Amino acid sequence: MIVILKKNAEPQQVRLFTDWLRSMGLETHLSVGENHTIVGLVGDTSRVDMESILALDIVEMVQRIQEPYKNANRKFHEEDTIITLPNGAKIGGGHFLVMAGPCSVENEEQIISVARSAKAAGANALRGGAFKPRTSPYAFQGLHEEGIRLLLRAREETGLPVVTEIMDAKHLPLFADIDVIQVGARNMQNFELLKELGKLRKPVLIKRGMANTLQELLMSAEYVMAGGNEQVILCERGIRTFETATRNTMDLSVIPVLHQLSHLPVVVDPSHATGRWELVAPMALGATACGADGLLIEVHNDPEHALCDGPQSLRPEKFAALMEKIRAIQPYADRSFSAAPAAAE
Amino acid sequence: MIVILKKNAEPQQVRLFTDWLRSMGLETHLSVGENHTIVGLVGDTSRVDMESILALDIVEMVQRIQEPYKNANRKFHEEDTIITLPNGAKIGGGHFLVMAGPCSVENEEQIISVARSAKAAGANALRGGAFKPRTSPYAFQGLHEEGIRLLLRAREETGLPVVTEIMDAKHLPLFADIDVIQVGARNMQNFELLKELGKLRKPVLIKRGMANTLQELLMSAEYVMAGGNEQVILCERGIRTFETATRNTMDLSVIPVLHQLSHLPVVVDPSHATGRWELVAPMALGATACGADGLLIEVHNDPEHALCDGPQSLRPEKFAALMEKIRAIQPYADRSFSAAPAAAE
Amino acid sequence: MIVILKKNAEPQQVRLFTDWLRSMGLETHLSVGENHTIVGLVGDTSRVDMESILALDIVEMVQRIQEPYKNANRKFHEEDTIITLPNGAKIGGGHFLVMAGPCSVENEEQIISVARSAKAAGANALRGGAFKPRTSPYAFQGLHEEGIRLLLRAREETGLPVVTEIMDAKHLPLFADIDVIQVGARNMQNFELLKELGKLRKPVLIKRGMANTLQELLMSAEYVMAGGNEQVILCERGIRTFETATRNTMDLSVIPVLHQLSHLPVVVDPSHATGRWELVAPMALGATACGADGLLIEVHNDPEHALCDGPQSLRPEKFAALMEKIRAIQPYADRSFSAAPAAAE
Amino acid sequence: MIVILKKNAEPQQVRLFTDWLRSMGLETHLSVGENHTIVGLVGDTSRVDMESILALDIVEMVQRIQEPYKNANRKFHEEDTIITLPNGAKIGGGHFLVMAGPCSVENEEQIISVARSAKAAGANALRGGAFKPRTSPYAFQGLHEEGIRLLLRAREETGLPVVTEIMDAKHLPLFADIDVIQVGARNMQNFELLKELGKLRKPVLIKRGMANTLQELLMSAEYVMAGGNEQVILCERGIRTFETATRNTMDLSVIPVLHQLSHLPVVVDPSHATGRWELVAPMALGATACGADGLLIEVHNDPEHALCDGPQSLRPEKFAALMEKIRAIQPYADRSFSAAPAAAE
Repeated sequence: MIVILKKNAEPQQVRLFTDWLRSMGLETHLSVGENHTIVGLVGDTSRVDMESILALDIVEMVQRIQEPYKNANRKFHEEDTIITLPNGAKIGGGHFLVMAGPCSVENEEQIISVARSAKAAGANALRGGAFKPRTSPYAFQGLHEEGIRLLLRAREETGLPVVTEIMDAKHLPLFADIDVIQVGARNMQNFELLKELGKLRKPVLIKRGMANTLQELLMSAEYVMAGGNEQVILCERGIRTFETATRNTMDLSVIPVLHQLSHLPVVVDPSHATGRWELVAPMALGATACGADGLLIEVHNDPEHALCDGPQSLRPEKFAALMEKIRAIQPYADRSFSAAPAAAE
Repeated sequence: MIVILKKNAEPQQVRLFTDWLRSMGLETHLSVGENHTIVGLVGDTSRVDMESILALDIVEMVQRIQEPYKNANRKFHEEDTIITLPNGAKIGGGHFLVMAGPCSVENEEQIISVARSAKAAGANALRGGAFKPRTSPYAFQGLHEEGIRLLLRAREETGLPVVTEIMDAKHLPLFADIDVIQVGARNMQNFELLKELGKLRKPVLIKRGMANTLQELLMSAEYVMAGGNEQVILCERGIRTFETATRNTMDLSVIPVLHQLSHLPVVVDPSHATGRWELVAPMALGATACGADGLLIEVHNDPEHALCDGPQSLRPEKFAALMEKIRAIQPYADRSFSAAPAAAE
Repeated sequence: MIVILKKNAEPQQVRLFTDWLRSMGLETHLSVGENHTIVGLVGDTSRVDMESILALDIVEMVQRIQEPYKNANRKFHEEDTIITLPNGAKIGGGHFLVMAGPCSVENEEQIISVARSAKAAGANALRGGAFKPRTSPYAFQGLHEEGIRLLLRAREETGLPVVTEIMDAKHLPLFADIDVIQVGARNMQNFELLKELGKLRKPVLIKRGMANTLQELLMSAEYVMAGGNEQVILCERGIRTFETATRNTMDLSVIPVLHQLSHLPVVVDPSHATGRWELVAPMALGATACGADGLLIEVHNDPEHALCDGPQSLRPEKFAALMEKIRAIQPYADRSFSAAPAAAE
Repeated sequence: MIVILKKNAEPQQVRLFTDWLRSMGLETHLSVGENHTIVGLVGDTSRVDMESILALDIVEMVQRIQEPYKNANRKFHEEDTIITLPNGAKIGGGHFLVMAGPCSVENEEQIISVARSAKAAGANALRGGAFKPRTSPYAFQGLHEEGIRLLLRAREETGLPVVTEIMDAKHLPLFADIDVIQVGARNMQNFELLKELGKLRKPVLIKRGMANTLQELLMSAEYVMAGGNEQVILCERGIRTFETATRNTMDLSVIPVLHQLSHLPVVVDPSHATGRWELVAPMALGATACGADGLLIEVHNDPEHALCDGPQSLRPEKFAALMEKIRAIQPYADRSFSAAPAAAE
């Protein structure tokens, strides 16, 4: 971290300041220029609050050099993290994971039929919502406990591991048998929830919030990893911008940027990002080519009667056609920031 | 709600569609044009999911006419909501409430001294953080239970009602004696928390999320009000945009817009919105002139040593000077959308 | 266009309103409901100003059904527009055009060597800046007339058609021999310039502004096409959002969305969008898979000494490796919204 | 400017780098740390292109310390700039200027009647559009030359100086008698136009672009001032964000921030920013309290028949009532960053 002091900083104030920094276990290197004095901090600055430093009258500017995250940082962990699911499916390090399924679990017939067609098309995990965050208190909020039960039934039938969203730590007991716990965009900074998930030893998929930076996403991963749970999957699902042609603006450049900053697997959810089924295929192909480690795709056996998010769900036959193109593109996908070569699927 | 059907919609599909709508208790009015058929829906459309309708092949466009919120809607509740705190201080309907205090409660001496100077300057409520949402798992997260205890001590000393933030419903028992419970921007769509707060019968202050629309803010208020708790205060604290000169972009136009849409009181937090103490006074004056019903202002007895957010805290003397200007401007503040005239303070 | 009138609209006001609309050559269809009266307008509404209608006291809401652009609209022109350059290279309808070259033309040796290596790697057009829009009046602004001359020299040497940016209509005479005239993001709504370009009969490449919607981009294309020049290429180069990890946020979903709305070719500029050379390859591959009709890529023989934008330029060898992957992915690229199949390259 | 070099930077590369910097007339100060080498640059860095430096393999980060603008910078010009118009009206340094009038000049009767009522209510300048930037090529684009003539007629009648927008440098001859030339948001970075305006010696009002930072706005002012024209007025008219409740998001915090960074007068245009007449009064009061040096307000004698932007125009009687409140608030407005005290109006 570098601190630039104002021209008029009193030598005595500067000494008080550097003493305070040393008291936090940091080394300081001063470089006195004509117009500014620059203080370089060496050591673990992840605990240093830049804002407290900015509050000092003698400080003009503070600039971090080291990222504030450690466990998620590729600098301290060069190899791609590879996560293995109960059915042997892997994600990361060239392994590609496709999580497909309906937005909401509605009934046994629905979830099992979707799971079967998703598996037949090549998906290696089942996604489906039991707890649905809805903007309106009057909208359908999911089947809750019953939804979890039906997901586990579908797993029995198909062997596909199950991915589903948690909305509150108090529901954790219901998630005991779930294979991958998803944290939704609205909860990306629900820090109390993240801490609880850090105590588990199972994969956690964290979706980027609609207005969160990549550094904030990595800091949320850090919350989970700081608790000892290193199985974190990062997910881009679009950010909120002025553009209204799509529900959110899907930022595929986060894939290579996150791969450069972190060793964690990165997946993309084109269904929620775009909110329109006819955009799911093109964006899924784009994400694959950009080097995503996997995809979350909504597949539905009957969009017309979906209780929610119908417009962004693919019919099974369209999903199957998409899977073929994904397999064709995957070998040529970008791997610039990854140690390992693309694994043979 | 208006649904525009595609040119090629089969009469039979249209009949199936209107039957389905009637099955939800809605009346439908058809108007068949050359290029489009328009279906007008009459009745309670707040339960209708626009997206499910958009999913239908015959539908080209859906447009809401009625707002999806009811309890928070001025159309159904013309009079301004006025909330009275234990010390008799009121907010709404021309009553102006100033909530001042430190970002974080640090120790008894600090919180009591700040509370005393805030009260002396004319603040009628004390704000202070016991639970702090922090981006980094390594940063100071507040004194928690002890912080709550110290806030209540400061209330004993000064008689000022206390406003503080909750981060998880499981902490509710600790908030039993708190006068106003604050929901932070990151939790604005923590729907499980909002539902719990709806069961209470005490004021809830909801901060707008960094990327949430005013309609979403009102829907979050609706979550609380749908539970029977009608004492909701709306708070603008800045949204996230491309501009980096301030921490967030403070959107003061939300004050008149929210007053037009809703009867709930609207307050502004210039300290967190700008992140810079020297901008707090100008923005507080601007918010007052725009017709805000109150302000959340950070006051600190010693910003240099604040454990967090020092840069945005005012010293007591600056706060006192600001209060004088606020009192001078308040009588001329905008009241365009309010039934009642400005109350004499 | 649909106009929703307020509940209390006087029949006489409504008649005055519909008379006024008919005076503009529009048919009106009334549908009177309990809470609202809906007026449907049939005819050419592209000249109707929604805001003037919104200004009327009796109007609650106005909703367009037809897009305000006609020449650029796929509804009125199903086939993909295919543009052919002097060297026979085509773009659109499955033809893929790669425009490569340096950010700025610096000298004859530089532009010719880059042109040669770009062509050798498979680029079919040369891009290079002679007029550079720079935020600072003190920064290098390009070689101007001399830069144009050097681009034409490079064309002589390589046969590659030349793409370069115009900043002011008064420079048009200098562009007489240029093959594709580029309108930069900052000039996307320089309407006087667009009108002048509409008088030409040569390809115009319009970059989307940093804060412009896709509809606004199509309206700018409409300015050129309304003048009779139908050779317009649309270009995504990133929009401005809160995220600072990349210079701009590259929105690849615009590729399928624009293909759905318009028949015009869509290209992407990953170099300017990301501002970082190491992100150019992954984003170029992503854009290709999403179905882009072409790419603008910065290639430089010596980034270290570039006078501007060095950080986003690829060295020739990296560009050549990228071209191979692009050729491998292109056959599997999305073509959902296109009539023609992908052309054999 | 501070440059942070990578850990592995070769001493020889570092020497080459510092030699290059010195060749640009900059002094360099090295500070070698364990993990990084920091190079501090002293001298005029406004010509240094940060991006070229970032392009160097040995560079990890570049951080500006000095602002890239000089003429507009308060650090080099402490006193507020005060601009005096032909009728003696002043703006800046505590002088408040209200520019009122219709969006578009339509005919002699209209412009003169609006000018008279604006003057009667206390406006000290007349605004009106002769050249209108319109998103659609099919929309009314203003009366052009005739509009300018009518504005000058209204000046004859009322003595009010005239403010109107220019869209292209080629129209400058028509603006010879105009008192204040306005550069619209879409042209804020039309650098060719800004250079031409720098050759004049009359006030130029520059509106902030919808996606431009304050630094970019100041750099555009720098373009004009670098030409020798120091009479620049900065104008906030809202930025584009995800919020759709208002046409744009009006960022009033730019008023104090710009006053801190620059000595130039800052005005606000609440009419275009909000796009809704009923929000003009509250936002005009807010801007006044925040310390704006003036306002641009749309006043119309008959919004219903305005050819454009009717929804954001105030009727004369509402404008007169607003002016009274503005006069009441102005003495208490924020003046934190200004040398001079508020002038008696």
